[in-house]
Amino acid sequence: MPRISFLPSGRTVEIGEGMDLLDAARRAGEDLAAPCGGNGTCGKCLVRVVAGTVKIDATAVVDPEDAAAGYTPACRSYVAGVDCVIEIPERSRTNTGEVSAGDEIEPVAPDGALVRTVDCVVPPPDGEDGLSDLGRLNRALAAGGMGPDIECPLPVARSLAGALRGDEGRISVAITGESGRDRIVRVAAGRPAPTGLGIAVDLGTTTVAVALADTQSGAVLSIKSAYNDQIAMGLDVISRINYAGRQGGLEALRTAALTAINRLVRAAALEARIDAGGITSAVISGNTVMTHLALGLDPEHIRLAPYTPTLLDVPVYRAGEIGIEIAPGAPVFFSPCVGSYVGGDTTAGVLCTELASDAEAISLFIDVGTNGEVVIGNRDFLITCACSAGPAFEGGGIEYGMRAAPGAINSVRVDPANGEPSFSILGDGEARGICGSGMIDLVAQLFLSGWLDPAGRLDRTRDTARIAAEGRRALYILAGGPFGGAPVHVSEIDIENIVRAKAAIHAASALMLGNIGISFNDIARIYIAGGFGRTLDIENAVAIGLLPDIPRERFSYVGNASLSGSYRLLVSGKHRASQRDLARRMTYIDPGGDPRYMDHYTAALFLPHTDRSLFPSIARRAARPLR
Amino acid sequence: MPRISFLPSGRTVEIGEGMDLLDAARRAGEDLAAPCGGNGTCGKCLVRVVAGTVKIDATAVVDPEDAAAGYTPACRSYVAGVDCVIEIPERSRTNTGEVSAGDEIEPVAPDGALVRTVDCVVPPPDGEDGLSDLGRLNRALAAGGMGPDIECPLPVARSLAGALRGDEGRISVAITGESGRDRIVRVAAGRPAPTGLGIAVDLGTTTVAVALADTQSGAVLSIKSAYNDQIAMGLDVISRINYAGRQGGLEALRTAALTAINRLVRAAALEARIDAGGITSAVISGNTVMTHLALGLDPEHIRLAPYTPTLLDVPVYRAGEIGIEIAPGAPVFFSPCVGSYVGGDTTAGVLCTELASDAEAISLFIDVGTNGEVVIGNRDFLITCACSAGPAFEGGGIEYGMRAAPGAINSVRVDPANGEPSFSILGDGEARGICGSGMIDLVAQLFLSGWLDPAGRLDRTRDTARIAAEGRRALYILAGGPFGGAPVHVSEIDIENIVRAKAAIHAASALMLGNIGISFNDIARIYIAGGFGRTLDIENAVAIGLLPDIPRERFSYVGNASLSGSYRLLVSGKHRASQRDLARRMTYIDPGGDPRYMDHYTAALFLPHTDRSLFPSIARRAARPLR
Repeated sequence: MPRISFLPSGRTVEIGEGMDLLDAARRAGEDLAAPCGGNGTCGKCLVRVVAGTVKIDATAVVDPEDAAAGYTPACRSYVAGVDCVIEIPERSRTNTGEVSAGDEIEPVAPDGALVRTVDCVVPPPDGEDGLSDLGRLNRALAAGGMGPDIECPLPVARSLAGALRGDEGRISVAITGESGRDRIVRVAAGRPAPTGLGIAVDLGTTTVAVALADTQSGAVLSIKSAYNDQIAMGLDVISRINYAGRQGGLEALRTAALTAINRLVRAAALEARIDAGGITSAVISGNTVMTHLALGLDPEHIRLAPYTPTLLDVPVYRAGEIGIEIAPGAPVFFSPCVGSYVGGDTTAGVLCTELASDAEAISLFIDVGTNGEVVIGNRDFLITCACSAGPAFEGGGIEYGMRAAPGAINSVRVDPANGEPSFSILGDGEARGICGSGMIDLVAQLFLSGWLDPAGRLDRTRDTARIAAEGRRALYILAGGPFGGAPVHVSEIDIENIVRAKAAIHAASALMLGNIGISFNDIARIYIAGGFGRTLDIENAVAIGLLPDIPRERFSYVGNASLSGSYRLLVSGKHRASQRDLARRMTYIDPGGDPRYMDHYTAALFLPHTDRSLFPSIARRAARPLR
Repeated sequence: MPRISFLPSGRTVEIGEGMDLLDAARRAGEDLAAPCGGNGTCGKCLVRVVAGTVKIDATAVVDPEDAAAGYTPACRSYVAGVDCVIEIPERSRTNTGEVSAGDEIEPVAPDGALVRTVDCVVPPPDGEDGLSDLGRLNRALAAGGMGPDIECPLPVARSLAGALRGDEGRISVAITGESGRDRIVRVAAGRPAPTGLGIAVDLGTTTVAVALADTQSGAVLSIKSAYNDQIAMGLDVISRINYAGRQGGLEALRTAALTAINRLVRAAALEARIDAGGITSAVISGNTVMTHLALGLDPEHIRLAPYTPTLLDVPVYRAGEIGIEIAPGAPVFFSPCVGSYVGGDTTAGVLCTELASDAEAISLFIDVGTNGEVVIGNRDFLITCACSAGPAFEGGGIEYGMRAAPGAINSVRVDPANGEPSFSILGDGEARGICGSGMIDLVAQLFLSGWLDPAGRLDRTRDTARIAAEGRRALYILAGGPFGGAPVHVSEIDIENIVRAKAAIHAASALMLGNIGISFNDIARIYIAGGFGRTLDIENAVAIGLLPDIPRERFSYVGNASLSGSYRLLVSGKHRASQRDLARRMTYIDPGGDPRYMDHYTAALFLPHTDRSLFPSIARRAARPLR
């Protein structure tokens, strides 16, 4: 078989003729980003053939400049009969993997973890009673009132011989009854402390976050987040579904999700100085596609009419079955999904708002993720709508975009007079990029001070070194170039991505309000969730039209609500018991099936909106008249 | 890291300094036999260092001739800092892997399989009811009176999307209630036939056998057997326990057992022209060490006082969890073990005899395996004893030994006058070796006709080309050499191994009889089980002292009783329900704790026995006077 070597790593694989270079790169363990999921439509998974020959699909999308420079899209380049050397340029990397802190969770009083711990002493084997290790364990548990039908999964059985002999028979047994029947989660020698460790996971399309908690005290011990390793296989859920349809694609996506989760679990365990094998419970919240991919379930029918996923309520499987590297017997609870386009991240997020309570006042929940979700309702009704906002607010598709992690510019002011920026950076170091809250600030400040017009074009005519033209596109220089330091630029394309994202969120909200015949002013409280970082400036979010122009005291920023909701489900049996009802109460509105959604979206593709009467306070402040 | 290359395969691995060559060979995927389990005591895992240098433990056991020829035991040769090329000679191979037929099973009327099959129709998804695929399946099952709490394991969930859409919603659902709660085993589109396929497995120390059966009709569709791939890691259970203690050893043994089982499952499925993925139940019978190794359970405490295994009654795990390549949700029932030295192979074997019935007469069950087991009793008592007979009757440790497979000499006659043999061969081809029944015949015939003395020495003084001296040892030439064809020799060492094996079996039987104060003549029926092949000659087995000298009509040869018992457990819910009681009724006598065992053993190291009064019919027939 032809041997394909990749530069600069030198990794080599033997690959059958006809396989595309994207698959070949994945098999070689290379990091090669395919934002459209290998669909041939984005022209981003570029590689250069240094030696040998490949067969290139002439219809593939590729920028003429890139083509002239010898780049070819890997997903449309096929191994011919000969050995090849392929260069992967730095720009084609995803560079996922960096772990950071940032999210915060408000601790709550626990009222029922997934797992309970029983301490007991198993007398030494005597050879006369004819009992096996499992027999001796069951006898000890029965003496404590448990069993006799308690289930002992195989990974637990494998640990028994050591655990029962490790500390003269003193053991700590973790047990779950979450799946209807008592099951042993873990048997540990001695009296390990703390027991009842659990992880809450927000499995986002772009970002994955893990919180390590003590489910007995409710204490949050560590929170870590990183990009989802699946980014290399598509930036949004539709691209991921495309990728899942490739040979081996579903398994690659499953593995990537688990790689991301397990890396964060290790980082959190390291910070809390505990052994990840001692974590005995988990809750995961993800949208319906992410939930399917993490479980290795084919997501194909999520996008095919009538949009029926395999699972909405996920049974409580064991961590070892799923591939999460904590105690293999640990129960894993998934926040239930509502439908194909509203998932467990939304139901978990709603749990952190008054929408999950018995309130009469109408509230709105906006989760600004790659898949944007909005939920409106009160004790009588819950309506939800999802839209594809893209990853711009999490730094995806933005040239210098990044998550709210150390090095991110997370807050920006622009001097109206000269266009000079001042900004704050997360952590102690130099600016490496800009996160969602920084982008919102920058776009809002440039717009309000007149350096950016409502259509998202930078003003090239005024005298500033901050704005540079690059071909037909202009960009704003936050750092680097004439100003020194590492470059952080924001281009008109980046701004366009932010405008599209905010337009999608606005359109979904407006569609729902129209459906029930109320206006934004009728909403008592708006909860905003998302991975912007702690510094989201509500005023600026209104200025760009992401949030409606209503009294600011009605807004609550709830941060990563999917993560917070996972945490609440981890420590509260009451919430777990009611969560499926919450999911069933939600009615889904399909924006794709409603032409008014596209009207709302198109109208919102300006700053803050085509209809300035919707944003009266912004219209008054804007430096230039709104059209 | 140093690179170790093996000849003649050319396989190369990079290995850390200090690792021994046995482990290195295993990591490279080489077949290298370690009869003592890598314990440095047998001097058989010989390799030759062709290039480079290794560090050799000077105390390792190695034959001086082998040492002079440049051979060194791999388990006591350690990688130094440099690259090496290592030759593995043909004689160090195990050559497992050949699959053959041979065993027979008497079909019985089924009365309750592990799995039942329900046909139903799931209406197409409509997008309005808000149901997932699992929700739709559960609704269909509930309409048929099942559920609502039926468990859906993850591998089954992964198949749902395809199965529910494969044949317009017509599905066949396999369900098991064997572990206390209904669980979905498999969902298949359409009306696959046959349903209810199951496998019965005899997981022997030396030989593995798999029977594929239709559990609804009781028909046996195919039987395949092969050597256990674990042979490379030790010939007996103690050697395997040693090997399990090496780094990665337990996992290597687990994988080897599953490799053997899965190879046979594929061969049986191929012969029956069915898809192995459609096999929905399994029963495994193995001794306690084999049971532990197949499940990846540390067997260490089986040989350490007080000899407490991790499991005796194995919970019903799923095939996918264990690693058996049939339907991953298929329940796997293990025949229960009695104690560390009497396992599920014995309880399965007893199931095929009157010992498991309500009979008043006393019966004896003798299972001549590598681990020999004897059971005596009636409806009032069951006593059992195990001994280490070694693999000689299955061809192990015999230079030209082989299983009862095509090419095996399975029946031998010797002309008393000139010592010339006549023999039959299994299958159509040339003789390639000799199996257990052939060895019993040969030793008995040589002994009865005076060519072999009671101590197992061949007569070098009489005029025959069949007996050749080789150093201080003589051998008997069945084929090859001056007689043409491929060589099949039997040496005095081979005969010694047979004599030791039969002495161990005899001693265990005699010890038990002595304990309850009866003689062989008081036994109404003796059941003989083992992998001899169908042609076991009872008269010859008595002549060598393997079986007692009692009226021949009291003997029943039951073949591979562990396999037959597995089959009965596979098709009978009644047997499964009573099997754990059967195991609990058995009382184990430890021969190691009784000095009389060694007395019986030593006395039996002659043909047929030191005390000729125990074998009156043989004493009369023997050509030479017995001492």
